[in-house]
Amino acid sequence: MNNQDNIMKSPDKQQNISPAVIRRLPRYYRYLCELIARGQTKISSSELAKLMKVTASQIRQDLNCFGGFGMQGYGYNVNYLFAKISDILGVSAGFNAVIIGAGDLGRALVHLSMFEKRGVNIVALFDTDGEAAGKDCAGVPVYPIDELENFCAENRVDIGVIACDKKHVKAIAQRCVDLGFKGLWNYMGVELPYSDDEIVVENIHLGDSLMILNCRICRNDTEDKDSEEESDQN
Amino acid sequence: MNNQDNIMKSPDKQQNISPAVIRRLPRYYRYLCELIARGQTKISSSELAKLMKVTASQIRQDLNCFGGFGMQGYGYNVNYLFAKISDILGVSAGFNAVIIGAGDLGRALVHLSMFEKRGVNIVALFDTDGEAAGKDCAGVPVYPIDELENFCAENRVDIGVIACDKKHVKAIAQRCVDLGFKGLWNYMGVELPYSDDEIVVENIHLGDSLMILNCRICRNDTEDKDSEEESDQN
Repeated sequence: MNNQDNIMKSPDKQQNISPAVIRRLPRYYRYLCELIARGQTKISSSELAKLMKVTASQIRQDLNCFGGFGMQGYGYNVNYLFAKISDILGVSAGFNAVIIGAGDLGRALVHLSMFEKRGVNIVALFDTDGEAAGKDCAGVPVYPIDELENFCAENRVDIGVIACDKKHVKAIAQRCVDLGFKGLWNYMGVELPYSDDEIVVENIHLGDSLMILNCRICRNDTEDKDSEEESDQN
Repeated sequence: MNNQDNIMKSPDKQQNISPAVIRRLPRYYRYLCELIARGQTKISSSELAKLMKVTASQIRQDLNCFGGFGMQGYGYNVNYLFAKISDILGVSAGFNAVIIGAGDLGRALVHLSMFEKRGVNIVALFDTDGEAAGKDCAGVPVYPIDELENFCAENRVDIGVIACDKKHVKAIAQRCVDLGFKGLWNYMGVELPYSDDEIVVENIHLGDSLMILNCRICRNDTEDKDSEEESDQN
């Protein structure tokens, strides 16, 4: 570890990392998780490349952005690389989040281990329809949406997870901005018009992904048919 | 509409559309939905570009891939463009899907209107933990996972939505491949090793998106601090 520290350049200033590299980092995180689970302690860029189906030079380029984690002839220390990437990805930032919308989706999200694993603490759900308030969900309290401002006056909240009815999304998002939230994780497919200076918005477009699946299946079917027709002709 | 048909090139052969263009189409779909909801019947590429925050030439390029929907000096017919893009995205393909995993996530997915809007019909849930089987969920029957093969012998199933415990994912995916499913929509973050020839796999990595949100917030905070320090010095 000492040798590695010696060759590390300072990763303190991360301004120059491109959004494209950032979007690739979670994939490294997942593969490194698997390596750790298998008990593997080091890996070369070429092994990692083979595993992740990208080029070794892509890997070296991506990881060099952060000052270079590897050592020539040794490869990467898996635990060290995982810790660094976790750190860059804010897994140790300790953000508090509220889920807005305590319907099926909001309640399903509470049950996923994803938040805890990524260092995000769900502190409350807020009910926008007046039905679920008062009932806990997996130990997380559920409040009526009217209490959002009071709750935030007494509790630090960094992230709003938007899982309410589409018709409420824009108004709720604006309340989160006014309350000084740092980020919104938006599940509802409604475009939110904020710049990063106002609030960071990350969208999950489930419907988009479903349509891409549909489309790829349709194109696969067409190609199969085409190649059958071609082989019929031969 | 007649004029537009005259200038349409045949979109029958779609082999040359790049995956990058396909991945952008759902976004067009969403914006066109909004335009239709507002009652807007035509739009120029420059108006659409402004709305979607991309360049007009990007839009013309993307839509030209499919034979060109626009007419010089008229712009795009919104309903026609929406219908064409829906068609390309397989919204009218009428696929049947089963959700595997009837826990909170699986049950939440059933309640989302997304499937119906994208033309996908949820025909059953399968329970992998032996707790939920027998109970319906929003009118969709829930069966024990052991009955998957029998169900598929009697019902056409195109898509498997993977929402079960991570430990079951690889075995379940293989059963779907063996049953001749056309696609898997995988929510569990477990990498599946199939080529498109075997089955089309589309992954939803919720945890990746959460980490990117975390990371963008952390970097935003750092930048704020940097600029505060700079202004302190000035």
